[in-house]
This record gives sequence, structure tokens and C-alpha cells, in this order.
Amino acid sequence: MIVCSTAALAEQLAAARRQIDAALDRYTELSRGCSARLRDAMRYSLLAPGKRLRPTLVLFAAEACGSTWEAAIPAACAVEMIHCYSLIHDDLPAMDDDDLRRGRPTCHKAFDEATAILAGDALLTLAFETVATDVQPPEVAARCCAALGKAAGATALVGGQADDLELQNSVGDLATLEYIHSRKTGAMFLVSLQLGGFIADADETRQSAIEQFGRKIGLAFQIADDLLDVQGDEATMGKRVGKDSEHGKLTFPSIMGIAESQQRAQRLIDEACAALEPLGEKRTGLEALARYVVERNQ
Amino acid sequence: MIVCSTAALAEQLAAARRQIDAALDRYTELSRGCSARLRDAMRYSLLAPGKRLRPTLVLFAAEACGSTWEAAIPAACAVEMIHCYSLIHDDLPAMDDDDLRRGRPTCHKAFDEATAILAGDALLTLAFETVATDVQPPEVAARCCAALGKAAGATALVGGQADDLELQNSVGDLATLEYIHSRKTGAMFLVSLQLGGFIADADETRQSAIEQFGRKIGLAFQIADDLLDVQGDEATMGKRVGKDSEHGKLTFPSIMGIAESQQRAQRLIDEACAALEPLGEKRTGLEALARYVVERNQ
Repeated sequence: MIVCSTAALAEQLAAARRQIDAALDRYTELSRGCSARLRDAMRYSLLAPGKRLRPTLVLFAAEACGSTWEAAIPAACAVEMIHCYSLIHDDLPAMDDDDLRRGRPTCHKAFDEATAILAGDALLTLAFETVATDVQPPEVAARCCAALGKAAGATALVGGQADDLELQNSVGDLATLEYIHSRKTGAMFLVSLQLGGFIADADETRQSAIEQFGRKIGLAFQIADDLLDVQGDEATMGKRVGKDSEHGKLTFPSIMGIAESQQRAQRLIDEACAALEPLGEKRTGLEALARYVVERNQ
Repeated sequence: MIVCSTAALAEQLAAARRQIDAALDRYTELSRGCSARLRDAMRYSLLAPGKRLRPTLVLFAAEACGSTWEAAIPAACAVEMIHCYSLIHDDLPAMDDDDLRRGRPTCHKAFDEATAILAGDALLTLAFETVATDVQPPEVAARCCAALGKAAGATALVGGQADDLELQNSVGDLATLEYIHSRKTGAMFLVSLQLGGFIADADETRQSAIEQFGRKIGLAFQIADDLLDVQGDEATMGKRVGKDSEHGKLTFPSIMGIAESQQRAQRLIDEACAALEPLGEKRTGLEALARYVVERNQ
């Protein structure tokens, strides 16, 4: 796949989203033993319309390193399941207490708190089961599970959320903010690229290139997200805007202003794309995706 | 190890608990990136005094099938981490709303709700990371992760908790009760034995023998637990007793009476031990452990 135009990217993104959504649907069609309410809650949140940015990165990274979307689908689904579980739990009343997500009531609003907690737990668990069962060969599955565990665990995703809650309304600097985001958002972006590379059995140069790309776009994504919270449109976003400043959260615009934040995000995307050079012409899909990350309006 | 006497079993249990606790301590000494509060909550719950029954089953099963405790320690720790996460989340106000666990305030009482949710999430994640990273060879690690995912997921552990909440105060029969418990308690007992067998690369006969053993003692354990809730001593148990009937929960004593429940548990243990016959004299540790499951007072 060589993506050079916006139209070509849009087509590729739509194709990736279709394949990911179909697989997520299959993985959550659980049979015997799952209460209907629990399954409904898992599917309600997981299949809600979304950008599927992280799983798309897994597919694009695997392809850029010489594998196929098909081989990467289980790992891509796992990344989306973990992303979705973290949203469900972050939205809970005891955490960020949000009512709206992806344009619909949050899971605990549509169901109830206990069901939302369990649906998150079940999606996190299903992510690991999916990778362990369906990524081939098993050595690569184990490697992917280890990387996912690290990215989702106490020193990354969960730790970032814990610090984020702890630091609300406290004075923080740019270093603190970058540190929180490198874990809360960055780790899952990074692991998306990592898994794609593992699945393609990428050599060290390619693996290191896509990981560097992952670090840069993870941060760029977060800056863009903070900017959208200031400038975005609630209807397009499908969630409340302006809530960061309401909650006294540290954000990039609040620390460095809007213009500098925009420049910073753009510079990160340029650096991310430059890092992909070792991949040759196979890199165009990832490059286009990187630009989309900061240019999106939702 | 041939365990024939109560004293020999007690010694073996203490040795297993020491090794498991030391490893759990190491695994949660997380370095950079984990907020102190989150780490404290994880360790508070995970290192609280407990029977360590499930991880001990992993060690005993691995040994009975020809491997060593050392090789089985990572999988044993993972099983305990998942057990502990499920207790933390089950105790939350939105679920069973319990204040006391293992003789101490529950995690959300000692810390706060958000921290308890995150500590549970982090322990569940750490379980998979531990197995994926430290179980060798990687093919066995992937197999263990897949089995753990199934046992902990929506069709087993999480699904059992969902049904348990849904069925509170409803009229149920023995079949419903056994079905819930086969998932809520039974699946984690079964997977403890399974993992031990996988680690020892057990042949089909041995694997099937320990799995049959696992199914029987899982159910026996649950009946014993229900009996302890009626007959147990709060100080010894370290948690509230009598809460099952208070909450209108279905229990074995409430359906079949105390005497018949006791007989049923004893019969299950006899059947479990009979299933172990293919293991030869290596089975004595598991046999002794099975008897302890129904004779314990906490």
C-alpha cells in the first residue's frame, strides 16, 4: 500500500476500521457463560463508533514492516479492547465521572457501575486471551502479551491515570505533563507500533524506527487532544469539551499556549515521519496516519 | 515430596507460602513510573496474609507432573494476582460493598475507590505480564496466558461475578448455584492445576487427571466456604460471616442444609483424590491439600 493522497488515506482508514470492527464484533460474540447484560455492556462500549486509531496503527505498522493486516488483526483488536477498558474505568464516578463518551452515555450511565467495572475487567482480560490464542507463532504471542502488559500496567497506562488523578488541581510543569502523558497515552501508542513490528518479525533497524515514530506521535496526539478540548466542537467530538480546564487539569495549551502547542505537535509529526526513513516506500501509510493525528477534528 | 502426615503438609504449605510471598513482593516492587499510592494499594492487598491456596495448587501440580516449584513460581504468582484483583473489585461499593477482607479494611476503605479500581486493574495486567515474561519456554507462556484469560474472563470469573450480582435475592436452584460457582470460583481453581500441568509439559493422561481434580476441589472449596459463612468465626476468618444469608445469596447450606453440604464436600474430595491415581506416589501433596480445603477453619 502506498498512500500519497488524503483520499487514499481516507479509503485505507475506512477499510482498516471495517476489518477491525468486524473482528471486534466476532471476539465479543461470547457464547455460553457470559451474562447477557455483561456482554451487552462490553459490546456497547467496544463497538461504539470510534476512530480505531491505535488498532489501525498496529495494522499499518505490521504492513510497513512486511507482514499483513490479517496477521495483525488479533493484536490490533487487543489494543482497542485495552483502550476501551481504560475509557470505561476512567469514566467511572470514582474517577473522572464522565457522562458522555463517543457521543453516547458512558458505560456506567447506560448500564450501572458494577456492570461497567466488570465490562472493563472483561475487556482487559479478553485482550490478553485474544493475543495469546490468536497471534502466531506462540513465541510472538508471548512477546506481544509481555509488551501489552507493560504498556497497560502500573508503570504505564494505569500508573498514568493514578498520577493524573493525584495531580488534579496541583501546579505542574511541562516535564510533569509530558511524563504523565508518556505513560497514560504514549505507552499504548508505542505498544501499537511495537506489536506491528513483532508480528512482522521486523529487524532491529525497522523495529527501532517504528518505536521512535510511536513515541513522537503519541505525544503529538495528546497535544492535539488537549487543543481539541479547548477548540473542539462537542457534537463532532462526541464528548464534553472544556472539561480539562474545568477540572483544573494540566494541559499543553494551559502551560505553553495554543500557538506553541500547535507548533510543537507539528514538529513532533515531522520528526516522527523522519524516523520512518529506514522503511523505504512502505512508510507512506504511517506517514499519512501521523498527519491525520494532528489534523483531525475529533 | 511425599506428604503423608498433617505435620508434613503444614510444613510444605508454609514453605510454599514463603516462596510465593517472596516472589509477590519482588513482582510488586515496581520501579520508575508507578505512583507510590498505587503501588502501596497493590501491595496492601496482594501481600495481606492469606492462605495462598490457588498459587500453592500451581506449585503442587507442577511438581506432581514432574516439574519444580521454581519453574512454577511466575504462574503461581499470576494466579494469586488475579485472585486478589477480583477480591478488590468485588469488595467495591458498587459490587458487594465489603469493609473487611483478610482481617483488614478492604482496599477502597484503606485507600479510596479510584485507587482500589486502579490497583485491581494493575494486578490483573501484572498477572499476564508476569506469565508472558517469566514462564519458559515462550510457547508454554502463551498457552498459560490463553488459559488464564479464559478462566478470568467474561465466560468465567468476571461472568460469574456478573451473574452473582444479578441473581441476588432471586430464587435459584442447585444447578444455578453450581453453574455460578463453576465459573466464579471453579475456573480459577481449574486453571491453577492446568498451569501446573502446562509448566511440567504433562502428558494427556496426567493433564486430564489434574484437571478433573481441579474441578472437584473447586466446588468442594466453595461448599466449604459457604459452610464457613454459616459456622465460621469472624476473627479466624478475617472477614464478616453470615453475610451471605444477609444478602440473600444462594448458598449450598441454604439449598441442601448443613449436613448434606458437608457430605457433598467430603465426597467431592474423595473423588478428586481418586482422579489423581495416574500420578502415582507424586500425588500425595495434592491429596493432602485437597483434604485441607474442606477441613480448614478460615
